[in-house]
Amino acid sequence: MVQPARAETARPSILLRETVGSIGVLTLNRPAARNSLSEGLIGELHAALDDMAGDKTVRAVVIAANGSVFSAGHDLKELTARRTDTDRGRAYFAHMMTICSAMMQAIVRLPKPVIAAVQGVATAAGCQLVASCDLAIASEHAKFATPGVDIGLFCSTPMVALSRNVPRKQAMEMLLTGEPISAERAREIGLVNRVVPAGTERDAAIALAEQVARKSAHTVKIGKEAFYRQAEMSLAEAYRFAAEVMTENMMARDAEEGIGAFIAKREPKWADR
Amino acid sequence: MVQPARAETARPSILLRETVGSIGVLTLNRPAARNSLSEGLIGELHAALDDMAGDKTVRAVVIAANGSVFSAGHDLKELTARRTDTDRGRAYFAHMMTICSAMMQAIVRLPKPVIAAVQGVATAAGCQLVASCDLAIASEHAKFATPGVDIGLFCSTPMVALSRNVPRKQAMEMLLTGEPISAERAREIGLVNRVVPAGTERDAAIALAEQVARKSAHTVKIGKEAFYRQAEMSLAEAYRFAAEVMTENMMARDAEEGIGAFIAKREPKWADR
Amino acid sequence: MVQPARAETARPSILLRETVGSIGVLTLNRPAARNSLSEGLIGELHAALDDMAGDKTVRAVVIAANGSVFSAGHDLKELTARRTDTDRGRAYFAHMMTICSAMMQAIVRLPKPVIAAVQGVATAAGCQLVASCDLAIASEHAKFATPGVDIGLFCSTPMVALSRNVPRKQAMEMLLTGEPISAERAREIGLVNRVVPAGTERDAAIALAEQVARKSAHTVKIGKEAFYRQAEMSLAEAYRFAAEVMTENMMARDAEEGIGAFIAKREPKWADR
Repeated sequence: MVQPARAETARPSILLRETVGSIGVLTLNRPAARNSLSEGLIGELHAALDDMAGDKTVRAVVIAANGSVFSAGHDLKELTARRTDTDRGRAYFAHMMTICSAMMQAIVRLPKPVIAAVQGVATAAGCQLVASCDLAIASEHAKFATPGVDIGLFCSTPMVALSRNVPRKQAMEMLLTGEPISAERAREIGLVNRVVPAGTERDAAIALAEQVARKSAHTVKIGKEAFYRQAEMSLAEAYRFAAEVMTENMMARDAEEGIGAFIAKREPKWADR
Repeated sequence: MVQPARAETARPSILLRETVGSIGVLTLNRPAARNSLSEGLIGELHAALDDMAGDKTVRAVVIAANGSVFSAGHDLKELTARRTDTDRGRAYFAHMMTICSAMMQAIVRLPKPVIAAVQGVATAAGCQLVASCDLAIASEHAKFATPGVDIGLFCSTPMVALSRNVPRKQAMEMLLTGEPISAERAREIGLVNRVVPAGTERDAAIALAEQVARKSAHTVKIGKEAFYRQAEMSLAEAYRFAAEVMTENMMARDAEEGIGAFIAKREPKWADR
Repeated sequence: MVQPARAETARPSILLRETVGSIGVLTLNRPAARNSLSEGLIGELHAALDDMAGDKTVRAVVIAANGSVFSAGHDLKELTARRTDTDRGRAYFAHMMTICSAMMQAIVRLPKPVIAAVQGVATAAGCQLVASCDLAIASEHAKFATPGVDIGLFCSTPMVALSRNVPRKQAMEMLLTGEPISAERAREIGLVNRVVPAGTERDAAIALAEQVARKSAHTVKIGKEAFYRQAEMSLAEAYRFAAEVMTENMMARDAEEGIGAFIAKREPKWADR
């Protein structure tokens, strides 16, 4: 696994980090570059996710963006500049695909829910970023596309995330035609959870994050991790695994408290609140 | 595999068994306990499923429930009572998760179709019970939720079944928020097949069961088993397996009869009818 | 792998081959036999697909049909005739299931997009043919069914393709009841991409094929192959694989041209155009 560079204070502006209550909000802030996922931005995103993984005051993460584009995917100018390398860029391209995939998987592995707030167009690795989040809220004006095929570069890494969210023929249509789909169509095929009026997607994502943040952080952590692990198992394996997870979960303090509170009809008090 | 206790005549009332024509109807009958899946009810369900597997007069199974709740999932009072065990309940919890998972898989392995008739709220393992059935009919008033996260106990075993029915982000939303979804939303995301007027779900499930019961029982058995097995294979493996299944199916008496009847434009007479 | 017989000029009429611009159009042409997939038609389809795989003038393939039925699946009379073989047909049935599965997988493996144009009823292996295509356009009058269960022969090979397109309970309903679903319902559950006015499905499929044909053929080939391969991997494996695919893709002439054209805001010129 390639370790992403830690975010440096010298370049904080391409990714804004805020805390709204117990919610960490990461805002892509390269609007002039259509929030493209440059090496720097991928590094900052991965570093911010790592920091939030270990930050007990953050209970859920929202990924939002400034400008009219959520993210246009890889930074093609940055990639193209390396064609003059002696290997015509191969090593750099491999490095970029590896760190980008690692960042996307860091979202999946983060022991806290990650929610995309999509205000505009999300294309290629930008669409992958939405698909990689646990949940996604889209503005009614958001659009989604995997248009790499139009520039000779098939959206192969984006399709890993897309095809795990969306039925096969619908994913294939996006990948082969490159055509954008509307927010409402994205909701129909499973790529986003909810479509909201334009301008409210960030607040809606934070509100959804706060709803999950009020649960036991330990329980959410157990559940999210188990979700993605069991998804890759056979039914029998998945049940064996999940039965163990639930048994351990029952032994945890928050389950004892939560079940006790439920039976006593009072509010539970979670361990880390 | 833990063997579930056989149903005892001393406690028949928590699970009603009826036969309507060739349809076995199992009705959860602990309405005062919100049809929660106590050790006794899990045992009775598994025993009834085993009995129906071997009962040639039963060609399909409907699982229904009495009261306003379909099933509220595990019996939390029963579980909590074991916190005073010397191991704080761990062995008992592991036993319960194992027998519950075994019962859910008995539905999947039953060589006959199993159809849920959901009249009310189905939560946690109750929602899992619906997801585990081959087909599901819901009252327009039915609701579905996996709210374990609200009491510190993530719905990890329910998600094994849920996530094999429902797209990833929609499953995650149910699991992380605990919020109920309507019957109509459940239909949209694939958790149930049909929504019917309140009070007609049991009859609709029986009618659907009867439709399948008129087919060759041998053929349905072959097909259901093959469905779940091929679902866990690669495309090439699945085709190799399914081609063998179809060849064997062609050699069976009911295929010879059925195809012959079709060509002769007459009604087929199945072997065991 | 059984090698299908090459198409012979003696029997060209059961499968019409045309070229419309850069689109290869295959038209099932056994309307009196409901375009059933006889040994001859399976062989011709597989041979035509193999030819088109190697034909640089063909950039996408449309599979259409003449008559009111798209395809009724296997040719039951042809199969039944072999019940008088000394092995009661077993070897022939195994042969037929193998060559049919091989032809369906040839669609998946073809390095060019394959689009179904469904004008009428597609049942059993006919429904499988639609499910096996990368994309599908349906007439508003098209219907889809897997009714093998009605004749004692469960649609086991069709379900391999169907269950990889459609959610589990919806696939199971089609397989267990044998009931047809409408084109609009097929779109809702993911079996087809678009529903169009009756009589326009062939042109709509060709138009969609032309849209994809304008992309770089090399890029489409890479992407289609990677799509089906990564679909069978774990998330981590899929990312490792896709990152390599994208790196190789970046080194290819068409990506260099396409990205350069995009940055320069001009039309790309693909290698083989």
